Amino acid sequence: MSDRNIYLKTIPVPEAVKAAMDNLDRDSLVQTETIPVHEALGRVTAEAVIARCSSPTYHSAAMDGYAVKSDTTFTAREGQPLLLKKEAGCIAVNTGNPLPDGMDAIIMIEHIVDEGENISIEAPAFPWQHVRRIGEDIVATEMLLPRKHTISAFDIGALLSAGIYEIKVYERIRMTFIPTGDEVLPFANRPTPNPGEVIESNSQVFKSLAAGLDVEFSFTAPVKDREEKLTAAVEEALKTSHIVVVGAGSSAGSKDFTRIVFEKLGKLLVHGIAVMPGKPTVLGTAQGKLLVGAPGYPVSAVVCFEDVLTPIISWLAGKHEPQRDKVQVRLARRTPSKMGQEEIVRLAVGQVGDEYIGVPLSRGAGMITTLTKAQGFTRVPADSEGVELNETVDVELFSSRSELDKVLMHVGSHDNTIDLLADILMDGNNPLRLVSTHAGSMGGLTALKNDMALFAGTHLFDPETNDFNFPFIERYLPGMDVTVVNLAIRHQGFIVPKGNPKNIKGIESLDGLDINFINRQRGAGTRILFDYHMKKAGLKPIDILGYDREEFTHMAVAANVLTGAADCGLGIFAAAKALDLDFVPLAHERYDLIIPQKHMEDRRIKTLLALIKSDKVKQDISKLGGYDTDLTGQRMKPGVSLGY
Amino acid sequence: MSDRNIYLKTIPVPEAVKAAMDNLDRDSLVQTETIPVHEALGRVTAEAVIARCSSPTYHSAAMDGYAVKSDTTFTAREGQPLLLKKEAGCIAVNTGNPLPDGMDAIIMIEHIVDEGENISIEAPAFPWQHVRRIGEDIVATEMLLPRKHTISAFDIGALLSAGIYEIKVYERIRMTFIPTGDEVLPFANRPTPNPGEVIESNSQVFKSLAAGLDVEFSFTAPVKDREEKLTAAVEEALKTSHIVVVGAGSSAGSKDFTRIVFEKLGKLLVHGIAVMPGKPTVLGTAQGKLLVGAPGYPVSAVVCFEDVLTPIISWLAGKHEPQRDKVQVRLARRTPSKMGQEEIVRLAVGQVGDEYIGVPLSRGAGMITTLTKAQGFTRVPADSEGVELNETVDVELFSSRSELDKVLMHVGSHDNTIDLLADILMDGNNPLRLVSTHAGSMGGLTALKNDMALFAGTHLFDPETNDFNFPFIERYLPGMDVTVVNLAIRHQGFIVPKGNPKNIKGIESLDGLDINFINRQRGAGTRILFDYHMKKAGLKPIDILGYDREEFTHMAVAANVLTGAADCGLGIFAAAKALDLDFVPLAHERYDLIIPQKHMEDRRIKTLLALIKSDKVKQDISKLGGYDTDLTGQRMKPGVSLGY
Repeated sequence: MSDRNIYLKTIPVPEAVKAAMDNLDRDSLVQTETIPVHEALGRVTAEAVIARCSSPTYHSAAMDGYAVKSDTTFTAREGQPLLLKKEAGCIAVNTGNPLPDGMDAIIMIEHIVDEGENISIEAPAFPWQHVRRIGEDIVATEMLLPRKHTISAFDIGALLSAGIYEIKVYERIRMTFIPTGDEVLPFANRPTPNPGEVIESNSQVFKSLAAGLDVEFSFTAPVKDREEKLTAAVEEALKTSHIVVVGAGSSAGSKDFTRIVFEKLGKLLVHGIAVMPGKPTVLGTAQGKLLVGAPGYPVSAVVCFEDVLTPIISWLAGKHEPQRDKVQVRLARRTPSKMGQEEIVRLAVGQVGDEYIGVPLSRGAGMITTLTKAQGFTRVPADSEGVELNETVDVELFSSRSELDKVLMHVGSHDNTIDLLADILMDGNNPLRLVSTHAGSMGGLTALKNDMALFAGTHLFDPETNDFNFPFIERYLPGMDVTVVNLAIRHQGFIVPKGNPKNIKGIESLDGLDINFINRQRGAGTRILFDYHMKKAGLKPIDILGYDREEFTHMAVAANVLTGAADCGLGIFAAAKALDLDFVPLAHERYDLIIPQKHMEDRRIKTLLALIKSDKVKQDISKLGGYDTDLTGQRMKPGVSLGY
Repeated sequence: MSDRNIYLKTIPVPEAVKAAMDNLDRDSLVQTETIPVHEALGRVTAEAVIARCSSPTYHSAAMDGYAVKSDTTFTAREGQPLLLKKEAGCIAVNTGNPLPDGMDAIIMIEHIVDEGENISIEAPAFPWQHVRRIGEDIVATEMLLPRKHTISAFDIGALLSAGIYEIKVYERIRMTFIPTGDEVLPFANRPTPNPGEVIESNSQVFKSLAAGLDVEFSFTAPVKDREEKLTAAVEEALKTSHIVVVGAGSSAGSKDFTRIVFEKLGKLLVHGIAVMPGKPTVLGTAQGKLLVGAPGYPVSAVVCFEDVLTPIISWLAGKHEPQRDKVQVRLARRTPSKMGQEEIVRLAVGQVGDEYIGVPLSRGAGMITTLTKAQGFTRVPADSEGVELNETVDVELFSSRSELDKVLMHVGSHDNTIDLLADILMDGNNPLRLVSTHAGSMGGLTALKNDMALFAGTHLFDPETNDFNFPFIERYLPGMDVTVVNLAIRHQGFIVPKGNPKNIKGIESLDGLDINFINRQRGAGTRILFDYHMKKAGLKPIDILGYDREEFTHMAVAANVLTGAADCGLGIFAAAKALDLDFVPLAHERYDLIIPQKHMEDRRIKTLLALIKSDKVKQDISKLGGYDTDLTGQRMKPGVSLGY
């Protein structure tokens, strides 16, 4: 472990991009080629394009009707029709026909009366009326497109119309991605990974991002962590590519060879950029081409692509760098950040009332799902210690701003029925994207209080009144007018391994050091339920091993049990069933949706409420197991225990 | 000509779209298929996707460093280092390695001191520090994606990480385009059209637009204007496609068979939509598939695609309809419009000072170049008689809003040197798109007066002072502080056919009815020059045949001469040379750029000025022929005739 790399000084992203541009000679690196115009969409012209033919190449009828000589029509008036003999004083033409010799105007078919051998008109034609003149659209020899122009659909129409069938363009940028790592399994083999193994996927994320930049992308099988193997792979890729990317191995671990190989084959430019995630990015050049060491963590790799590679590729290709839609959002959670480096924070974003709300997602660089769940991200600058709750920040969106209209923001307790709704809401002609932040039942109430969600799912049991949710609404949302609708009654219990090997019978079984418990986070309704039963059983947190270990969802608790990381945890039946675990019932509870009255007229809430009243949803919930749907879709009132 | 079709009632576009949706059964029309995940970018899920594996599948090191048992480290303090024996009390790990048995925390490599057989630490590790726990990113059985979700680059990463290698998606929408028309030449033959012929290009515009919607597109050779041939072609296309488009023949001409064929094969839904261009759009269904009659004019065809087909295709594909960036622009020209139908007006758009300016382009449906020149378009509603000068309108942009920063707005006289600048300005690392509206020299001054352009190119000769441009600036831009820079001295003369068959010697030759002249538009410097010389020769407009026929550019004038539509016109040498015509010199004139002082610090103007001072530009202008560059790039002062 003594031969570990040391980072070079990390540098800001724009400096890293500039270092690459300064060390590449674009004109000698990117060649030109001549290709058919009709296959040139998105390509970049290498020189100005001059029209070969005019369009139209002749005076032509712009309308269906009759061609006339305008000065023979000057006497026509309303009420004083003029007769013109067909094929003599007038000639029938369709749109696009050449203007017949001697004629200089077209009268539209709608403005004549057909009288057999003649037509009759009641208005004169003025010269060149409804005639498309030679070169009206394009004049031969005029410049149609300048150099370095990205060819659009319309350009292709104009080029073909001007008789241009081939065009000189810059070649597409070619990139090869080389995944590395002894632990990495090629996805093409469709593996099921064992502990210590991971499925290679970054090559395919890069391929998909590269497609958006019209890059010709190829990738190799994963290369083992051996310097000579990586060297050979990079050398081979350099033969065909403008850009060679080595996936993972860009950091300072004992098996990180990227930097060493780059130094051997060419020139090292950058090792480390001042942004998180994305920091262990390496840049170099060899044979006039760009070498990139991309971080192994999926989110870091994406930042490396989007912040570092995208501007370089756009510059090499002669294109504008694609721009993201931006919105301003109010932040739903305090987000501290380390001074000295920029941080990119992924956010779930949706519209609540008149403003956009952004909920920061987990920041682990290994969490690819934070990218699939996020609508966008904000950049916390290097000189900031973070962003406070309710502060407004700029967010760059992954899709267009208009798609935020279709986001239905939920903050609250996690339940599998919420996933089920998320699925069904995407159906139909006006799909909604349910964006759900699992902050627990109490987190849901807080979000409503701060106007941060359209609704909250909660299952808060109050032992004093034996009621659900209403006592908490009264206490934490005083004065707020809300509607409470039941989504389901669900069964909570202990999730235990198949066969219940430690023979857990109830909460009393957790007393002592034998059983390794996994808890839910503070504020979760399930934790409140657990605490209630713990207290009732005369137990204290200190009596229970693992009380301090927290997970945020039922499924995460179940996964801990499945893998043996824990012996049991409290959760819903559906989570146990999903992972084929056993379930020791503890209680039934009401999972309700709390909707502020002011959002009841929101189109999205109306769609949601219509949905949960449908038989289809009740049936789907029942199929999950561990739910009763007697109250599903019904409006709840205070003081009715479980409603039944 | 008696069998002409009559339009059905034209209907608003949204009604036409709805008619199509109401008459198509999406679920039976669009099938599902199972494809590899790594090829699924942009596809739409047919069902919810459930994770097969967790990620990570094991507790793993999140950092390079040493795995430890946290409770053995509690005594470590700053100044009180704790020694841990390698491979016993601590185990070296790289990022991604499984957490060794018995260990529950990682200490980063940066936070240890390597002392040979031991490491030393000066801070305790807390439990699960820098450990990625099982299922931290993905828990097996959780829903990764809902149905009807468009798969992103990130989704592909998440799916592969969760061990999902195949995915059930909706098939891509398949469209076949059938061009029609006896006069239409297939572009694949690379034809040079004769009068009466046009090159087929709409199929390729549709192909390119369809590519943006991920449509599987095919097209046939052009079909002759015969009903049975068109019927056969549509029937053949229906075998493989969800959507069959017939190009042209959708109107009411005697050779327009689209409607007849649709009625024969299925059900006619729409004939005529209430928008210009685009009106002769036909919609129908046959065999549960969509039939489309697209107009033949290129701009009408594009409107048919974008306004009618795009929403239908998006709906069929289960995707969000793509949205365009929008800006508000101040209109540079009064734009009257017919009541009763929406009109789509293409606009050149650029930023001038703090606002966006939109210059309406020609409105002919046959002008494909208005689409290549436009940055966007505005919709004049059906109930409006048009938009006034200086009115603010909403513009939908063809590219992203940020690209408008790169637009350099010019209004003024047309000159080939302006095209030359447009080409060169696209080079370099900060390319600029020169958007030039040919409104003549006087039009340029008016645009500056109204704050509608960053600069104006003018060549206005004042006989009284024998000066160029300054007397007009004084008169028409009183009080405006401007900088005047010469672009070139150019040679004006009569453009005549090769060999000068009518023996034109000067302006006197135009007297009488023998010579068919083509004039420039009012306000053009060239027209003012012509009028000056006409007056000097003692001639009047009525003496000159064709004085009233106007073109807007030198090249259009030359094209009229080339095709015999005119015997001569006044224009620059470069235009005659470009079309290999002869040139009878009349005068030299100064073509200057007038730049309001307030724009002199604009980054784009600075780039422009630096460029025209370069030797490269002078050389390129000289090469055009008919120009002197003695003054190019120099600042002009009043009262110096031609400057030399």
